[in-house]
Amino acid sequence: MTANQQIILDNRPQGEAVESNFKLVQGTVPALQDGQVLVRHHYLSLDPYMRGRMNDAKSYAAPQPLGEVMQGGTVGEVVDSRHPKYQAGDKVVGMGGWQEYSVVDGNAPGALRKVDTTHVPLSYYLGAVGMPGVTAWYGLVKIINPKAGETVVVSAATGAVGSAFAALAKARGCRVVGIAGGPDKCRYATEELGFDACIDYREHPDLKSMARALKEACPDGIDGYFENVGGYIFDAVLLRTNAFARVALCGMIAGYDGQPLPLANPALILVNRLKIEGFIVSEHMEVWGEALAELAGLVAAGKLRPRETISEGLASAPSAFLGLLKGKNFGKQLVKLTP
Amino acid sequence: MTANQQIILDNRPQGEAVESNFKLVQGTVPALQDGQVLVRHHYLSLDPYMRGRMNDAKSYAAPQPLGEVMQGGTVGEVVDSRHPKYQAGDKVVGMGGWQEYSVVDGNAPGALRKVDTTHVPLSYYLGAVGMPGVTAWYGLVKIINPKAGETVVVSAATGAVGSAFAALAKARGCRVVGIAGGPDKCRYATEELGFDACIDYREHPDLKSMARALKEACPDGIDGYFENVGGYIFDAVLLRTNAFARVALCGMIAGYDGQPLPLANPALILVNRLKIEGFIVSEHMEVWGEALAELAGLVAAGKLRPRETISEGLASAPSAFLGLLKGKNFGKQLVKLTP
Repeated sequence: MTANQQIILDNRPQGEAVESNFKLVQGTVPALQDGQVLVRHHYLSLDPYMRGRMNDAKSYAAPQPLGEVMQGGTVGEVVDSRHPKYQAGDKVVGMGGWQEYSVVDGNAPGALRKVDTTHVPLSYYLGAVGMPGVTAWYGLVKIINPKAGETVVVSAATGAVGSAFAALAKARGCRVVGIAGGPDKCRYATEELGFDACIDYREHPDLKSMARALKEACPDGIDGYFENVGGYIFDAVLLRTNAFARVALCGMIAGYDGQPLPLANPALILVNRLKIEGFIVSEHMEVWGEALAELAGLVAAGKLRPRETISEGLASAPSAFLGLLKGKNFGKQLVKLTP
Repeated sequence: MTANQQIILDNRPQGEAVESNFKLVQGTVPALQDGQVLVRHHYLSLDPYMRGRMNDAKSYAAPQPLGEVMQGGTVGEVVDSRHPKYQAGDKVVGMGGWQEYSVVDGNAPGALRKVDTTHVPLSYYLGAVGMPGVTAWYGLVKIINPKAGETVVVSAATGAVGSAFAALAKARGCRVVGIAGGPDKCRYATEELGFDACIDYREHPDLKSMARALKEACPDGIDGYFENVGGYIFDAVLLRTNAFARVALCGMIAGYDGQPLPLANPALILVNRLKIEGFIVSEHMEVWGEALAELAGLVAAGKLRPRETISEGLASAPSAFLGLLKGKNFGKQLVKLTP
């Protein structure tokens, strides 16, 4: 029997998430049944939404169960198959979780998808051409729906969602302004990701300062905002919105540890006639095909080539994940599971 | 020359608005020029939005200028006309302001509209079949867009907007729950306005208590909310929203005096995938025809017969207006200017 290292959620965070919430265990790969596929994971995706699922609170998704393998996106290679649609050697993307191998029901809709790595690196199917890319696409295209010449802003600008957002918005003729932590990330945003400007929130740690920086970076005001963070940055952006601006609310990472995160001045929603919409990309499967096609095209054309931060080996996943929550990663955070 | 009593905005409120912000002055009616129409006002409309315009703050509308006649909706009768479209005796609705007479340019688009008082009382054109009615219509139909069987909630339930909202929502097969101040208003809401339930916010003065009351009144959760007030009531409603609920944000009367009015938990917008949209009904003139036709039909059919609170004489307008801001009125607040 093949050994299969796994990471389970051992206990829930009390406030901030810590490494001891997770536990590395040794499993084995069971024998394949008819219709099943055995996948060896090359990369594991780490995403901010996972923090929310570590809590046992009412939310849009069921909490991650205690004692079970952490759920998460994976790309890898089919190593054995008892399903006619899959052969050994196929490159696939799925939700294999924090483990080296997964056994997948080949008939379950959406459980496994074969991908082409001719023009798109395999790992990108967890980022730019995966869930984060489609998240950026949905917020930009379906909620913000910008006209050429409008100004759009995204927080967590150099992450997997932010970098895809920039490429998609530039393709639509927008001015794109990012918000990120530190001068290196801001330089990366403007020099490599195509942002017209990027604001370092560490240099603008309060509402007034951030609002001033936004005024400078967005001389014509803000028409669309893609919110990943929450807190005073959200407040500052609302102060700079134009009439009829649209806000796509995708994450409030600043509030994941349970601290209260109020919105200071919701009256601005009325004053500026804003539309604010929260969404979960997995509830809009109908757009994935169109979105992934555009994203893959941008990658193939060299217009979307975001960096990745790759940590080595399954055991490194918890610390890499906690680093992601603190913004220590640079671009998409992955865990590499094969030598 | 005809005497014309007028009320001007003399100075701006410092915090709460007070009577001394206004000043009664004696004007005269100038001679009519070609194309002009002289209107004698029968009723002056008092509306919460006027409070916002008393401030000199950035908002969607220019502030009410100091030293000029307070702006506001009026209904009345043409007493003299040098415009072929209008004759003495015509009943008209317009924006004549806080004065006994107004001289109107008959060619200005939207400045004056002839109305039929066969089935609809003249004063209703300032309420149920006027701007407040269309406001309710826009928020319900264009933003909340409810399906039959859904639960919708409105704050300031017995006001001009709330009463129209109830009739429109019942016509669409919704469960309609109101929030109002005091047992008399709540009884009026359920016994006369058609609300299925009404919550007295005075009995539920904090978030927890209001959230409990909403749970009881909305056993299937809340699918749509029409916000007129803001503050802890808004917070409590968000706690009870179903996935994909819609919020029409039309007023935040609780914050008009400048006190901060944060939204406690905007993460709920994401958790419940809400859509929140602010709007100003005067920016959507394209719907007025359809909305007014439906509202007039409901009035004619006896399904929308809200009460009015009528104060007598122009000089009573300031105190009546301040009473409106404190919820002392019962239904639409008007000032009667003719004996």
